[in-house]
Amino acid sequence: MERIVYLNGEYLAESAAKISVFDRGFLFADAVYEVTAVLDGKLIDHEGHLARLERSSKELGIKMPVTGDELMDIQRQLIEKNGLVEGGIYLQLTRGDEGDRDFSYSDEIAPTLVLFTQSRSLIESPKTQTGIKVISFDDIRWRRRDIKTTSLLPACMAKHAAHAAGAEDVWLIEDGFVTEGGSSNAYIVTDDNVLVTRPLSNDILHGITRASLMALAKEMNLTIEERLFTIDEAYQAKEAFISSATTFVWPVVAIDDKPIGSGKPGELALKLRDIYIKTARELAV
Amino acid sequence: MERIVYLNGEYLAESAAKISVFDRGFLFADAVYEVTAVLDGKLIDHEGHLARLERSSKELGIKMPVTGDELMDIQRQLIEKNGLVEGGIYLQLTRGDEGDRDFSYSDEIAPTLVLFTQSRSLIESPKTQTGIKVISFDDIRWRRRDIKTTSLLPACMAKHAAHAAGAEDVWLIEDGFVTEGGSSNAYIVTDDNVLVTRPLSNDILHGITRASLMALAKEMNLTIEERLFTIDEAYQAKEAFISSATTFVWPVVAIDDKPIGSGKPGELALKLRDIYIKTARELAV
Repeated sequence: MERIVYLNGEYLAESAAKISVFDRGFLFADAVYEVTAVLDGKLIDHEGHLARLERSSKELGIKMPVTGDELMDIQRQLIEKNGLVEGGIYLQLTRGDEGDRDFSYSDEIAPTLVLFTQSRSLIESPKTQTGIKVISFDDIRWRRRDIKTTSLLPACMAKHAAHAAGAEDVWLIEDGFVTEGGSSNAYIVTDDNVLVTRPLSNDILHGITRASLMALAKEMNLTIEERLFTIDEAYQAKEAFISSATTFVWPVVAIDDKPIGSGKPGELALKLRDIYIKTARELAV
Repeated sequence: MERIVYLNGEYLAESAAKISVFDRGFLFADAVYEVTAVLDGKLIDHEGHLARLERSSKELGIKMPVTGDELMDIQRQLIEKNGLVEGGIYLQLTRGDEGDRDFSYSDEIAPTLVLFTQSRSLIESPKTQTGIKVISFDDIRWRRRDIKTTSLLPACMAKHAAHAAGAEDVWLIEDGFVTEGGSSNAYIVTDDNVLVTRPLSNDILHGITRASLMALAKEMNLTIEERLFTIDEAYQAKEAFISSATTFVWPVVAIDDKPIGSGKPGELALKLRDIYIKTARELAV
C-alpha cells in the first residue's frame, strides 16, 4: 500500500502527490518546514513545532492556510491512514504558485501545504549505542538560520562531505566557533560537568528539542552555559552530543577523528536522552 | 493554448508539468538553474549559459541528463512549440527524487530537468527609458553565490522590500561594499568615465551578460576597474547600471532615493546596452 500524503486539502497516494513546476517552493526555496517526531502514534513537542512554524511563516509573510487545530487534525489523520507508530511527520509550507516564475509575488497568493509521514525506529536507534562521528565543516549558510526554510543545499553538501569522510554528520564552524550540527543543535559537557551550547540568535536554528532539553536540564539542576565554544574546546570536552526532533539526543564520540572523552557515548547525553524520551512520551498528544 | 513545458523528456501542457513533492529541488533547493534570453526566436549567449550550467552542476555533483546538443534541441523545440519570438527560457536541474526525504542521496539518483519559456518584451523595455530605482539591502546570502542555485529566498525577500519601498530592485551590501543586484551584476561609472564593477569571486554570480559586456567594453577601449566599491561611491557616481540575461543593461537612476548623476539614464549605460543587443542578435543561435 502506498503512503498517503496530504497536499492542499487532499489525501493522496504518494505517487499522485505532485506540485506544479511553478510552485515557489520549487523555483525559489520560498518555503518553510517542520519535522515532528511521532512515538506511540502520538505527536512529540507539537506545540513547539506549531509555534516555530508560525514564527517562520510570519518572518517571510507566508500565510498559514490552516489553523493550529486543523493542522493537528491533518497530522492525526496522516498517522491513522499510514498506521504510523514511530517516526516523523514532515510539513512544508510554500508561498504558493502563481502560474509563472517571477521573484515578485502578490499578497493574495494561495500557499501550498504538504505533509507526509516517515516510519522510522527512533527509540531503538543504533546510533544511541555507538554514538556518531562528526567532522568540522565551514558554515557557509545564509544569515537567517533561525528561520526554518527549505534552503537546505548547504546542509546537503555538508552531510555529503561527512559521509564521504566516513562520519555521520558535521559540526558547522563560523569564525572558529561551532554554530550547530548539519540538522541539529550541538552541545558539549566540560570536565566539571557544565553543559555548554550556543545561545539562540539568527546564527542557529531554535531547536524545539533543544528548548525541551534545556528545561529538563534546569529541572535536573545541571549547570548550563549558553555561550559560544570553539571546535578546539569541543575536542577536549568530556562529552559531546546533538539534539533534533527525530534523533532526540545522539552522543558524538569523535570529532574530526579525535575521540571525545572516553570515545564512548557520554553518560550525561544518555541520561538526558532517556529523560527527554520519557517526558516527551508522557506529554505526547 | 497552454504553454508547453519540457519535463524529463516530455513536452507537456504547463498545467500537467508537475513534479513529485519528494523532488530534492522542492525539499532541499538541491538544484541549479539558468535563464537564457531569446530575441528573434533565437538564443542569446547560449554557450555561456551552457558552460555555467555545467559548472554549477559539477560543483554540486549533479549529473547533466542531456548533452549540450540535446539541450539546444530542447530549447529550439520549446521556442517553436510556444511560438516564442522574444523573452526567455528558464531551465532548472535538480538532483532528482528518490521517493522520500533524506539529506543523503545516492550517486545513482536520476536528475530532474525542467525548461519553460516566458514571452516578454526585452528590447522595448520601459525601464530602459526611465531607468530603475534601487535600494541598498543587507546581503545575507550563503557564501557560494558563484553557484547558480535555486536558494533564492534572500533575493525574493530583498526584491519584496525594494517594491515595498517604491523601488524596482536592490543593491546588496556586504561589509560596506556593493556585491551585486537582486538578480543582476552592478556597475558604476566614475566622473572620469571609468567603468567599475566587482571582480568575480564566490561572493557574486558570474554573469554571462557581464562577461559579454566586459568584452565589449574592452573592444570600445573603455577603462575598466574590476574592484570593490562602496554604496557611498555609488551615490556619487556619474552613472550606475545593472546587467542580467533578460534585462541586458538597465540604467539605475536612483539609489536609496539619491539621484545618480543627472537622475536620468546614463549615456554609457545606454550605449553599452545598444551595442550588447546588436552584437547579441548577430551572434544568436
